[in-house]
Amino acid sequence: MTTLDLLIQNLTRLPGVGRKSASRIAYYLLKADAAYAETLAREIAELRERIKSCSVCGNYTEGDPCGICSDPRRDRSVICVVEQPQDIQTIDSTNEYHGLFHVLQGVLSPIDGVGPENLNIARLLSRVQREGAKEVIIATNPTVEGDTTALYLVKLLKETGVAVSRLASGLPVGGDLEYADRLTLARSLRGRTPLSL
Amino acid sequence: MTTLDLLIQNLTRLPGVGRKSASRIAYYLLKADAAYAETLAREIAELRERIKSCSVCGNYTEGDPCGICSDPRRDRSVICVVEQPQDIQTIDSTNEYHGLFHVLQGVLSPIDGVGPENLNIARLLSRVQREGAKEVIIATNPTVEGDTTALYLVKLLKETGVAVSRLASGLPVGGDLEYADRLTLARSLRGRTPLSL
Repeated sequence: MTTLDLLIQNLTRLPGVGRKSASRIAYYLLKADAAYAETLAREIAELRERIKSCSVCGNYTEGDPCGICSDPRRDRSVICVVEQPQDIQTIDSTNEYHGLFHVLQGVLSPIDGVGPENLNIARLLSRVQREGAKEVIIATNPTVEGDTTALYLVKLLKETGVAVSRLASGLPVGGDLEYADRLTLARSLRGRTPLSL
Repeated sequence: MTTLDLLIQNLTRLPGVGRKSASRIAYYLLKADAAYAETLAREIAELRERIKSCSVCGNYTEGDPCGICSDPRRDRSVICVVEQPQDIQTIDSTNEYHGLFHVLQGVLSPIDGVGPENLNIARLLSRVQREGAKEVIIATNPTVEGDTTALYLVKLLKETGVAVSRLASGLPVGGDLEYADRLTLARSLRGRTPLSL
């Protein structure tokens, strides 16, 4: 196998990169300026050395604790629980939430052999007790696993006395009733919000 | 800017990789096994050192001349002229062509400042004369630039006495007349092939 074939094969392992995209990327790297290919290679090689998990919340970070945990302007009375580090940026980009985060590093999934002991749950409980949070918002995905994990966390957190909420599930903004699936529509009915003038 | 942001920004320069894909790839690299990220980085870094242009045809290769030019089973009486090295693999994968190739490294494009002197044309002429090819198949893309380049080459090659042909342009196999654009349909009419039992 040639160097080019090996690179193409390895590129197809990346998410969203098929055989054709991998080939286009490889040929692009051959034609692009040498400095770019070098920089990209160095960044990929150094990524895992430089980026660690925040010891407080589990977010990816270069310093410890991470920028969010150490930001004095953040509201320390709320903790938003997410599945993956990348969910933090997604939620942060709404500019609607200014509290802290906690990364579970997955969801409960018996089929994949993921139980509570494999998730970053113990540290969440000690954070809630130690930091005196008033509310925990559970922002796991609205999937079977995400919902199960949310229910499991509610039970655990009940003892600490903290208020627990879950991201609303329903119709996406700009969506169309006609194209909504039954489960989503059922949830949006159950979770309907009162309207008043 | 953090290491992660820099990597994401650099990944978006790759063809077909937008902001969202770049972010997914970066997070995937953080979670994937370390050996994979290292291998990928090394391959990208070494790519340009190891892969050169074939001095005969202009194909990307690790040895010189390339595997196709040095393959004794290839039909040396036909040369297929393509725009880019990656076109060689595309044509080769049809298993319909067993001759040699010649890479122009582009097409004539006055707007982009690409004239005949910027293309790998002089070497094509000397190859045709020296190697005694009987046919040259011009496989530039069926675009304005590709067609112009084909016409230019026909004029040049006329003097050498070699037969020159062009890839057929017409309806794609499995396509539908209804969805064909007018230009393609017009070409498929002009280039119609006789049918007989």
